[in-house]
Amino acid sequence: MVNYKLTYFNLRGKAEVARLLFAYAKVNYEDVRIEREQWPEIKPKMPYGQVPVLEVDGKPLAQSLAIARFLGREFGLLPESSFDQAIADELADLTQDMFFPSRAVVPMREPDEAKRNALKPKILEESIYPILNKLEDRLSKSASGWLVGDKVTWVDFVFFNFAEIMRDIYGKDYFTKYDNLKSHYRKIKEIPQIAEYLQGRPPAPL
Amino acid sequence: MVNYKLTYFNLRGKAEVARLLFAYAKVNYEDVRIEREQWPEIKPKMPYGQVPVLEVDGKPLAQSLAIARFLGREFGLLPESSFDQAIADELADLTQDMFFPSRAVVPMREPDEAKRNALKPKILEESIYPILNKLEDRLSKSASGWLVGDKVTWVDFVFFNFAEIMRDIYGKDYFTKYDNLKSHYRKIKEIPQIAEYLQGRPPAPL
Repeated sequence: MVNYKLTYFNLRGKAEVARLLFAYAKVNYEDVRIEREQWPEIKPKMPYGQVPVLEVDGKPLAQSLAIARFLGREFGLLPESSFDQAIADELADLTQDMFFPSRAVVPMREPDEAKRNALKPKILEESIYPILNKLEDRLSKSASGWLVGDKVTWVDFVFFNFAEIMRDIYGKDYFTKYDNLKSHYRKIKEIPQIAEYLQGRPPAPL
Repeated sequence: MVNYKLTYFNLRGKAEVARLLFAYAKVNYEDVRIEREQWPEIKPKMPYGQVPVLEVDGKPLAQSLAIARFLGREFGLLPESSFDQAIADELADLTQDMFFPSRAVVPMREPDEAKRNALKPKILEESIYPILNKLEDRLSKSASGWLVGDKVTWVDFVFFNFAEIMRDIYGKDYFTKYDNLKSHYRKIKEIPQIAEYLQGRPPAPL
């Protein structure tokens, strides 16, 4: 049996996709959640001074999407064809493009709520809706309701986490016009292993 | 035979890794280089309003790293084990982490050269050298001189392109203290197909 150890802060953030994949696959792992005050001690032990890090039988792997894709491969959650695998990679990197400008409106970076709220519509209109419109269109043509092919793949969990983060930042309503994306979100949420995981999930901020 | 068409600006930028991989594998492709004034017409035809886009028998794939990983897989340039494939993904995403803060010192974004030069040491010290130090260390332990395993893989080309971009932004000297990274750069440059490609490469800015 492979020994998995995931190290991150007590946040969902960049580790939650891995946790969702472990829950889906019902694979045990050590979920190490470090406190802010432990970080100076732990940082130099991480391969690039960053978390999340997944240790696989003691060998460290950094970078959240590299971790998610790896677990997807190990757990049989990669699309089948090489081209579809690339589309999953494309969609995962697109979430990064949408997430990046949103960092400007995260309370940790911009403590002034009025300033945050003033910036949000511009970010949604310029950087998020143009891509979500295309993804809504993509899902509207998907017979399965999954993002790539006819079964759930790792990138569906990337999107579920993305939607949760966006909801936390922009509120529930940012998403209302996207019926297919909403169904996709619910489809993940209703997978029995995921429903169970979400119920028992330790309370942790974005 | 697969029909490949790569669309990007007349820049190296986010398309050059794909071009290097095509050159290495000696695979023909259509290298479409659009002019700035064509962009408003072409943008709505691209799947997410972005380039580069690789069309594979007419099917579009966006996102530079998704394209590079796909071509790596098609051309037999993926590391062998699943874990090593993940390490290649990790290293590719690390170049993005290093590249991102450098956008602040690209002439297109900061036209004032004095301001650019004032910012550079801080970016190098805070965001680039800490990661390059680790990569230098990684390469010092590599018997093959390649980043992952004992043969060249797609991420070696990602790094070659990264080094070229950094050289253009920070000058030749930013790199002098990294003997192993310099050898790695030369190792790619001296691959016969790459040497030939670089000689014949159309002059195109960063």
